[in-house]
Amino acid sequence: MIRIDALQYANWSETVFRQMREGGLTAVHVTIAYHETFRETVLQMEAWNRRFAAHSNLITHAYTTADIRAAEASGKTAILYGAQNPSPMEDDIDLLEILHRLGLRVMQLSYNNQSLLATGCYEDYDPGLTRMGREVVAEMNRLGMVIDMSHSAERSTLDAIEQSRQPIAITHANPDWWHPARRNKSDTVLKALSETGGMLGFSLYPHHLKDGSECTLENFCRMVAEAAERYGAAHLGIGSDLCQDQPDSVVVWMRSGRWTKDVDYGEGSAANPGFPPQPAFFHDNRDFPGLARGLAAVGFDKSEIAGIMGTNWLSYFDRVFDGCDG
Amino acid sequence: MIRIDALQYANWSETVFRQMREGGLTAVHVTIAYHETFRETVLQMEAWNRRFAAHSNLITHAYTTADIRAAEASGKTAILYGAQNPSPMEDDIDLLEILHRLGLRVMQLSYNNQSLLATGCYEDYDPGLTRMGREVVAEMNRLGMVIDMSHSAERSTLDAIEQSRQPIAITHANPDWWHPARRNKSDTVLKALSETGGMLGFSLYPHHLKDGSECTLENFCRMVAEAAERYGAAHLGIGSDLCQDQPDSVVVWMRSGRWTKDVDYGEGSAANPGFPPQPAFFHDNRDFPGLARGLAAVGFDKSEIAGIMGTNWLSYFDRVFDGCDG
Repeated sequence: MIRIDALQYANWSETVFRQMREGGLTAVHVTIAYHETFRETVLQMEAWNRRFAAHSNLITHAYTTADIRAAEASGKTAILYGAQNPSPMEDDIDLLEILHRLGLRVMQLSYNNQSLLATGCYEDYDPGLTRMGREVVAEMNRLGMVIDMSHSAERSTLDAIEQSRQPIAITHANPDWWHPARRNKSDTVLKALSETGGMLGFSLYPHHLKDGSECTLENFCRMVAEAAERYGAAHLGIGSDLCQDQPDSVVVWMRSGRWTKDVDYGEGSAANPGFPPQPAFFHDNRDFPGLARGLAAVGFDKSEIAGIMGTNWLSYFDRVFDGCDG
Repeated sequence: MIRIDALQYANWSETVFRQMREGGLTAVHVTIAYHETFRETVLQMEAWNRRFAAHSNLITHAYTTADIRAAEASGKTAILYGAQNPSPMEDDIDLLEILHRLGLRVMQLSYNNQSLLATGCYEDYDPGLTRMGREVVAEMNRLGMVIDMSHSAERSTLDAIEQSRQPIAITHANPDWWHPARRNKSDTVLKALSETGGMLGFSLYPHHLKDGSECTLENFCRMVAEAAERYGAAHLGIGSDLCQDQPDSVVVWMRSGRWTKDVDYGEGSAANPGFPPQPAFFHDNRDFPGLARGLAAVGFDKSEIAGIMGTNWLSYFDRVFDGCDG
């Protein structure tokens, strides 16, 4: 069974990789950069190369969907690289082809703040894709890189959906009609996304959940069912946003990077600045089979569950990774 | 017919690429770094990606010998990346795997001066491979990257030959018994090189030639014949060191990099600081067929000529590019 998680940023360890195998994960899209420069991102890739060598029985680096299928066949979890911010490409569009060659398959055009390319969801105003943003969308289309707007603002996201010749993704967020949060997405965005063949990965990060850490599996799955009615089950997947075993210093880096001397609390607050506790039904990769059971309990059929748990992402990657001519 | 040039650093242009096709070049090992840092080397790769896109009818990037053979079949010249100095890997052994993924297939362990890895041929003392040098040799063996000692000093070169589990190369130099020059190689080195399966690429850079720019084709080919007697024709190839259409500022960068505030004249002199004129028989890539005729004139047979003009390099790359387990 193909199971794909379209976003994790764990404190990587053999324990986590063993749990991926226990949870039956075929592929995981891992974040390798939040605010890192090109060189810093390459350092992350170097650390991954050491992990691939040290844990070659558990994980393997995937450049293609053929690599994902080969991982499945050999009982390993395929790792796909992604960046949550365009910082790894700096101000140099030619770096995209270099990063693609090194395995970058997903890139967000902005992360909370304005970037060189697009506006983030915490800015006051969103003028939409920038001049460079439009060029980068075309280059990502050519190379076969997923355009991810998870942390971007509404107009920029709608611009990206319209400009991109390939369907785009929101790898980790939920609908804001279920839980209104800066990071969750409007019905307008999710309709435009799904109508163009794009994908939404449902997040299990407590700040994106109704009732936060107290959210129940049933409540989560009812939201998925409602989303399936609105947008079609074929456009839905999981993007857990699992940040397992990370110290709170990591969420400080995610939110504040090097852009402020203050602390930005993002979805948290001064009273609650760290990672929130995970909901009881989703602590780590071993809880993926439970999600599938939860989807069955709210009425999804086998084929829909297979789609949401992995094959929808795989079909989408099949389409996007091939790239398209300029 | 397979024709391979194991070193060029031209001022790349459509003119040069068309001349490669006219000269029947199957593959050219091009220098992408002299003293460049990692990021600067990546900028050179970015420039090459634009060239591959703009001149896709003439050239193609080769990562493997299968790519070289495919280029031959499709009437293009395969481009292989190399660095004349370990500067692109900085002080970070993990960068080698990254550079390898990006296509770096050849790296010199030192360029004229002491590096972190080995001693260059212009230093007064040569203590041999450094601690890090031995680690890098093993990692290059594992990855399948050619260890090139063209600009290295004698003991470091002998160390590399001994330490490496794959045969090494001197991509561009001549025997010093023909023309004594700091950059040409001793009989001791060339014997050790060839006895371990290594390769020597004959240079056509005037400072490496007997009579310099006045060297004749016959004289050059008689030297090749003598080398074939001493070392075996199977270990010989061409590494022209062609620096076509380059302004003299480029030879200043090669020699002085950022290591001196003075000007180092290297093989030149204050009176003769620039690129010397090429010998009459070898101006550019169109002169490769003439080399083959010159080899025939001094008595080489067809199969030896095919070897020296290209298949010896191809067999060597077949062996080395596969890498070997740690």
